[in-house]
Amino acid sequence: MTSVLWILFDGGGDRPREGTTPFFAALKPVIDSLASYGSCGMMDPIAPGIRPGSDTAHLALFGYDPYKYYTGRGAFEALGAGVDLKPGDVAFRTNLATVDERGIVVDRRAGRYISPEEAQEVEGLMAKIGEEIERKYGVSILYKSTVEHRGVLVLRGAVSHRVSDTDPHKVGEAIKPSAPLDGDERAKVTAEVINEITARFRSLSKELEANKRRGSKGEPLINAILVRGGGYMPSIESIHDKYKIRAAAVAGVALIRGVAKAVGMDVYTAEGLVGTKFDKFDEAVKLAVQLMKRYDLVFLHVKGTDSASHDGDFRGKVDVVERLDAALRPYEAVLRENYVVVTSDHATPVSVREHTGEPVPVLLYGPDVIRDDVTKFSELTCWRGALGRIKGIDITPILASYLGLSEKFGE
Amino acid sequence: MTSVLWILFDGGGDRPREGTTPFFAALKPVIDSLASYGSCGMMDPIAPGIRPGSDTAHLALFGYDPYKYYTGRGAFEALGAGVDLKPGDVAFRTNLATVDERGIVVDRRAGRYISPEEAQEVEGLMAKIGEEIERKYGVSILYKSTVEHRGVLVLRGAVSHRVSDTDPHKVGEAIKPSAPLDGDERAKVTAEVINEITARFRSLSKELEANKRRGSKGEPLINAILVRGGGYMPSIESIHDKYKIRAAAVAGVALIRGVAKAVGMDVYTAEGLVGTKFDKFDEAVKLAVQLMKRYDLVFLHVKGTDSASHDGDFRGKVDVVERLDAALRPYEAVLRENYVVVTSDHATPVSVREHTGEPVPVLLYGPDVIRDDVTKFSELTCWRGALGRIKGIDITPILASYLGLSEKFGE
Repeated sequence: MTSVLWILFDGGGDRPREGTTPFFAALKPVIDSLASYGSCGMMDPIAPGIRPGSDTAHLALFGYDPYKYYTGRGAFEALGAGVDLKPGDVAFRTNLATVDERGIVVDRRAGRYISPEEAQEVEGLMAKIGEEIERKYGVSILYKSTVEHRGVLVLRGAVSHRVSDTDPHKVGEAIKPSAPLDGDERAKVTAEVINEITARFRSLSKELEANKRRGSKGEPLINAILVRGGGYMPSIESIHDKYKIRAAAVAGVALIRGVAKAVGMDVYTAEGLVGTKFDKFDEAVKLAVQLMKRYDLVFLHVKGTDSASHDGDFRGKVDVVERLDAALRPYEAVLRENYVVVTSDHATPVSVREHTGEPVPVLLYGPDVIRDDVTKFSELTCWRGALGRIKGIDITPILASYLGLSEKFGE
Repeated sequence: MTSVLWILFDGGGDRPREGTTPFFAALKPVIDSLASYGSCGMMDPIAPGIRPGSDTAHLALFGYDPYKYYTGRGAFEALGAGVDLKPGDVAFRTNLATVDERGIVVDRRAGRYISPEEAQEVEGLMAKIGEEIERKYGVSILYKSTVEHRGVLVLRGAVSHRVSDTDPHKVGEAIKPSAPLDGDERAKVTAEVINEITARFRSLSKELEANKRRGSKGEPLINAILVRGGGYMPSIESIHDKYKIRAAAVAGVALIRGVAKAVGMDVYTAEGLVGTKFDKFDEAVKLAVQLMKRYDLVFLHVKGTDSASHDGDFRGKVDVVERLDAALRPYEAVLRENYVVVTSDHATPVSVREHTGEPVPVLLYGPDVIRDDVTKFSELTCWRGALGRIKGIDITPILASYLGLSEKFGE
């Protein structure tokens, strides 16, 4: 069975400085060999000049119009954290934080490190608050701690994501009351629920064992929960129903796992693939290549390029690309008999340290794909390739056609 | 007067194998010379990765969004067969078939060969059934035999195309009753009409002279009519109203003739242009060049490339291109003074034998068109041309502009 390995360097795209970019500088013989034999081009993840988030870009790349399907980051983050969301659920991203007696935020991350025991204790506290909320509002809530101070809060019932954040997004300011953003009764109820959770958390968190211990050591207390980025879970047709593609994703980052799950991909983890610029790729690539036997498409998400970019770390970004390429080396022969896509979800230039709106290089290798002149995968070279300039949303239909899975439109 | 000759190789696009494609391999000095002096590019007939039918692709190429105008093959096939459809008419594709006593289909084609006399007799039978239908339902019907066992059935009145096929699409199964596909009263009536025609045909076909003769020889009887692919005739603004272009099409294939007619082109036939891979092009090209004197645009449809592709016949596909090019040779000087477009409506790789979703090469020659580096018309070369990567629906507006016929948008 022919299959596709799709390698995505998150934030991999860059802007040239002193005649080079991380993709151009990286020594990556496997990827560049695939570029030599395949088609290259430039891809606007969403549309020219649009600065994508990783979530909207991934939706587009998986073949879903983000203007139709994107409904706030919260829902995708909750999915990624393993919460089994149903269409209509509303999810928020949360921070555990430290406030002073007047309710002014003094640490938006409560010291950042939250131990597993502390996280569990907070989840217990939120479950208790949830019982009160359910009785009072008929809204059931689920809180799950994710990484460090971060978590997700899911509301189920007659709720809406059209409410404002309580997170002031900076220290020295008070927690904001959540307010409905439209006239819908559900938005009113949701804001009330959020404010009630905020108040109950502040009063009940005094009893946390974690805070007794933290207080005695002079560490920042976990005495507030900040809520932001509400989104509702949309009803999304699976990639199998929409494109006939059986797809798997290998990813360590919660948000990407969430998007992949939302479109019906089976999501896998691999040792070493955590989502930092120090990730190791041997196990992830090994797993991805194994999965190619069972899936039409295996998506491998590499976060490190984006992390290094946000740090302004050119060399670190190059290293991530080089380590991934080295991990591909044992499988070069297998890859040659299948399709390989290499691309990025958006540029994150190390000079800018933020997502930008330029197109990113894209490579499509396959035994029956047109071979163009491009011999190196990078922003400085792919623009002259046979793919021309395409959009992120074109990729999945193109792959479905090569895999022979597309429905014909007409006779 | 400057005019456009538009040569379309149906299914001409291909995928590279062993470093070549039929377009690349074909010796076609006239077309390649036009490529040398003109602009080349790659064209997604509908959109990247979308596998087009010939009908949807032609609609797009003629400047009509197929997602808006495509309403099932039946209507276009009936138009191509010379039936004068009106907006709102519903047309089906039909097979004459053989069923056993229990109504089980034993031959979906009634032996495939239907003599002209037999076809005429069946048309007479259907006219008789039509009188009954008209009396009972107020729906008028028209049946026309096309090629071999195939025909078209047109319903006019308060009818709908939203009914299911009666054709089981395989032997060994019974004719299916047609059922309405939505709650509309017209769909209910249409399904009843179809089922009545099916029943009347079975009983009345016993009296056909053709069946007396066939029965005595042990040949498959013409004792059933199978109906499929219902489509209604949309209201389509003509290419002259929409783009100010007076257009003619020279085509042998009923479906393409139908699409051309639907958009208001005058449709011509030429000796030798039947629609097979053995077609001769001398008369067709001669006629097309003559018509250039009277029309802004002359569209010449070459079916053989698609037929050869469906047969997996690389050499046959090359031959079609080479014969067409040879037929152009006497008119090279005329062509040089006009515009020439060469393209394809979709790829049909000989390795796949089916329509696929890759872009196809496109060539635009004209005395005032940008000359790029491309010297050969093929998938392996046109991607580096000045046209870049365009969509099928872009072609007609581009030609209208070169012809000086476009309306200005704004001041």
